[in-house]
Amino acid sequence: MPKVAVILSGCGVYDGSEIHEACAALLALDRAGAQTVICAPSGPQMHVVNHLAGEPESGESRDILVESARIARGEIRPLQDVDPAAVDAVLMPGGFGAAKNLCTFAVDGADCKVNPEVVDFLRRAHDQGKAIGAMCIAPVILARVFGPDLSPRLTIGNDPTTADLVQQMGAEHVECKVDASVVDHDNRMVTTPAYMLAGSIKEVFTGAEGFVQELLALCR
Amino acid sequence: MPKVAVILSGCGVYDGSEIHEACAALLALDRAGAQTVICAPSGPQMHVVNHLAGEPESGESRDILVESARIARGEIRPLQDVDPAAVDAVLMPGGFGAAKNLCTFAVDGADCKVNPEVVDFLRRAHDQGKAIGAMCIAPVILARVFGPDLSPRLTIGNDPTTADLVQQMGAEHVECKVDASVVDHDNRMVTTPAYMLAGSIKEVFTGAEGFVQELLALCR
Repeated sequence: MPKVAVILSGCGVYDGSEIHEACAALLALDRAGAQTVICAPSGPQMHVVNHLAGEPESGESRDILVESARIARGEIRPLQDVDPAAVDAVLMPGGFGAAKNLCTFAVDGADCKVNPEVVDFLRRAHDQGKAIGAMCIAPVILARVFGPDLSPRLTIGNDPTTADLVQQMGAEHVECKVDASVVDHDNRMVTTPAYMLAGSIKEVFTGAEGFVQELLALCR
Repeated sequence: MPKVAVILSGCGVYDGSEIHEACAALLALDRAGAQTVICAPSGPQMHVVNHLAGEPESGESRDILVESARIARGEIRPLQDVDPAAVDAVLMPGGFGAAKNLCTFAVDGADCKVNPEVVDFLRRAHDQGKAIGAMCIAPVILARVFGPDLSPRLTIGNDPTTADLVQQMGAEHVECKVDASVVDHDNRMVTTPAYMLAGSIKEVFTGAEGFVQELLALCR
């Protein structure tokens, strides 16, 4: 039974993990017979967004790991306590949390910094031959961490501005439809557009099922 | 295309809607070709639970509608603004929010009070012949609102204590397996155990798919 580390970034599309994507990934992994190790870095979110108003709440602070625990029903571990050697693959759902909490892409674009715990975990996982999957906007993290060295082939769907930033970070961007994935066999990475293109939760799940199959196929 | 009001109660199993159940219901509805009108009552949650520690946070307050908006990606309406006449069915996912925010069952058991907006919406929906579905612990709301008048046949899985409380409120409890539903054709109600019994998100989704089929079959 393959074991997959799922790295969350909070709970809610505008300031954390996109909830439908995270659940679609967890469901697809469970249906494919994979075990999950849900984890997240600790530390304050970039901000808290009121998802009804669509605007940041002033004066409120929430922790990435504590909020991620909502999606995990409490079954979550601090990312720093997870050893990449103990899993076969890594999966990052999208949502603005990936671009605000796991890295600073939402603010800094191609000059973004990635959370040091996330960099360390991804580098070690890759060096140990683990497969890495990313959905929606999360592939920008792979572009930033691995772009200059590995030029990974990635997708964020077809948004030209975001694709251009991915290329600036040293990755190769490949356009992709919502129900498909881009597989980089050499680097053992797979990416899928999810809500970068999806119009509904059904489309997200269809994409996630194929994406998870590709991710598990990349496991050694 | 049938239209289903999905009533949320926050965002997170311990103080709001159970996220996997809500997403499984939304996915099953979307796959079945139904439209959704996601809604929630406004007002403070009973409390805020730190889902990492598994304990209430003192001094923190969150709004049911604002937090529910996370699951809905912002596409949510105040329950009081939704007219039951505009939908074909109603669906309530579980999670402690159903028993803490939509009613006081978690504290008061069989003597619980149901949020007046929820009572009003459910009564009008039933009087207009709409189908009503509830997952996990949410059937206790149907027991409290409709028990004395209609004696609906409901399930919360097989927990004897909870089943006894359901019976005390005037409903008939029926044991049910995780992948099945209990249908009350006379009252046009359907219930399924979800995480009252499920061991994984896959089991929740399997149950939700059958449950949604039954709910849509009850629509006039």
